[in-house]
Amino acid sequence: MQFFYWRSTFTTTDTGRWDKPNDDGRSTIVANASNARYALSITIFRISVQSSFAFFLSHSHMTTPNPAAVKAWLLDLQARIVQALEGVDGNAFLRDTWERAEGGGGVSRLIEQGNVIERGGVNFSHVRGASLPPSAMAARPELAGRAWEAMGVSLVLHPHNPYAPTVHMNVRFFEATAEGKDPVWWFGGGMDLTPYYGNKEDARHFHQVCHDALAPFGADLHPRFKRWCDDYFYIKHRKEARGVGGIFFDDFNELGFDQSYALVQAVGNGFLDAYLPILQRRKDQPYGERERDFQAYRRGRYVEFNLVWDRGTLFGLQSGGRTEAILMSMPPNVTWRYDWHPEPGSPEAQLYTDFLPHRDWLAP
Amino acid sequence: MQFFYWRSTFTTTDTGRWDKPNDDGRSTIVANASNARYALSITIFRISVQSSFAFFLSHSHMTTPNPAAVKAWLLDLQARIVQALEGVDGNAFLRDTWERAEGGGGVSRLIEQGNVIERGGVNFSHVRGASLPPSAMAARPELAGRAWEAMGVSLVLHPHNPYAPTVHMNVRFFEATAEGKDPVWWFGGGMDLTPYYGNKEDARHFHQVCHDALAPFGADLHPRFKRWCDDYFYIKHRKEARGVGGIFFDDFNELGFDQSYALVQAVGNGFLDAYLPILQRRKDQPYGERERDFQAYRRGRYVEFNLVWDRGTLFGLQSGGRTEAILMSMPPNVTWRYDWHPEPGSPEAQLYTDFLPHRDWLAP
Repeated sequence: MQFFYWRSTFTTTDTGRWDKPNDDGRSTIVANASNARYALSITIFRISVQSSFAFFLSHSHMTTPNPAAVKAWLLDLQARIVQALEGVDGNAFLRDTWERAEGGGGVSRLIEQGNVIERGGVNFSHVRGASLPPSAMAARPELAGRAWEAMGVSLVLHPHNPYAPTVHMNVRFFEATAEGKDPVWWFGGGMDLTPYYGNKEDARHFHQVCHDALAPFGADLHPRFKRWCDDYFYIKHRKEARGVGGIFFDDFNELGFDQSYALVQAVGNGFLDAYLPILQRRKDQPYGERERDFQAYRRGRYVEFNLVWDRGTLFGLQSGGRTEAILMSMPPNVTWRYDWHPEPGSPEAQLYTDFLPHRDWLAP
Repeated sequence: MQFFYWRSTFTTTDTGRWDKPNDDGRSTIVANASNARYALSITIFRISVQSSFAFFLSHSHMTTPNPAAVKAWLLDLQARIVQALEGVDGNAFLRDTWERAEGGGGVSRLIEQGNVIERGGVNFSHVRGASLPPSAMAARPELAGRAWEAMGVSLVLHPHNPYAPTVHMNVRFFEATAEGKDPVWWFGGGMDLTPYYGNKEDARHFHQVCHDALAPFGADLHPRFKRWCDDYFYIKHRKEARGVGGIFFDDFNELGFDQSYALVQAVGNGFLDAYLPILQRRKDQPYGERERDFQAYRRGRYVEFNLVWDRGTLFGLQSGGRTEAILMSMPPNVTWRYDWHPEPGSPEAQLYTDFLPHRDWLAP
């Protein structure tokens, strides 16, 4: 863990970013010619760092997963996010705790008809079982029969103001154990932004924070997870992105437990930095009935994605999860209109032309 | 066909209903004791009718499917239903025709913000292909590679008045052909009623018409198709029926083509009898904001069922069907509220206690 924090600090010192990810994820030294000697020394230093890092990684794969630490962090993350949101909204979130007969339970934190957030939830859940059913892991039949646990924090916020985007964030951990065998585990997570009226400054800021959270763990991760997000949050029956994207990853354990966990922490801890400034600057922007109408119409797309395509939602609903907690992702109000299209060139049309098509929001 | 119409007429003459389905689908003579001789003669006559009928059925299995006739009837059914609904609403339905690159197309008839119907569609579609993909029929791999066509009329109507129930009706035909082999075909369909404020008179009327449409084809069909409807239109993640049910059937060919087609015609043609009287008597019933709120909330259940559980909707959306036509089933406006429950004993609570639990609406 120390190593990680050191490396993280190193890459963000005053010497600036000294390597830059290419599209294919490789790094290039970007020090200029007059600093050739300096660059060389950096290169040598870097090789030595990378060797140590590679050793550390190969070692860290051996580190034992620590579900208790993950759980404590998740609960703290939930508390910090709720507290910050309460500060912006001025209203307290409800707290609903629940238990699951088969093991585990959760804490749902919810708000409806707040001053700023029209409907939203920040939910923690931790479920476990003595024996993983074969059907649960079609792709990993060797896990059947193992003891398992899954935990995570999942949030969706639908602000009242149509100029403030809806946001989703999720961090999760899964582990399956069996006596005498190595535990099988992975992390998943991400966050993505769904504006009604697109704003380039907002989109760039959100993607920048996502980028920066992942940067310490490897330059290839952000482009990979950004693309994964674009692919995942795509409404296939509309041929339309859900929003302007962000990052998404799943089945992630390639850095070993400590570093993978650190990465997930960086993502979860980055959420408030990514979203709060956007919410702050849009929450009081004046709007009228037209904007609310468009927001309600576009909220229909959110419903369509979550109920038709989102694996998490469908798995939860189809496996007897807690329906009301899962469906906190549903917007407060939604409309459907037949074959409606915005007037070309209108602010509503710009969402379709300038924001929903996949693009690199961090391109200069 | 003549035989069918004759038998249909016979069972609805002034002599009244002379047999009555038990729960298990068998029939019992219900003529009273003072009419014993009359009952006996009916019984003998009935045995002879049933013998002829059995012969007719075994013969009718040989009748060749006639997709052209089905298509003509479906288009006529659509036109008749739209005309009748326009008469009630006072507004014309839009007409949208579309073609499918792979073959076929459809005619969507739609209404939004009518006087009576807030949003609704009566859609005809006819799609076909030269070769059925193996994935399309996992349960019938022997059909892969066959030429196929599917056609149907599907309607959903969401009336404005919260006292008027939402209704769904569908009739459909599928055929897969291959040179030198018998065609494989089946019909499917049904109709079901989704009230917001339940009404026993309405529910009984709807189920009676469903019953009567099926009665000429065998006393076992209504209980079978009623149960099938209860099972199908069930929102598993809510442990709640979608509404008060009706009838549902699929993969139906057991009466041979002519009689199966006649049955489907009886269902489709019965729709206006089943629904229009209910719409007529509820469309002007006074209501307030409370009733509209509850309607919008309950409409959320319709969305949840259709997008999470309805095989037709999911197959359509996931296979590249025409999204706007498929999603005409979505209500015009919907709300979600966290863990909301009606006040015990209220008219809203009665929906949950007295209408949604499965029951025999035709029980005396």
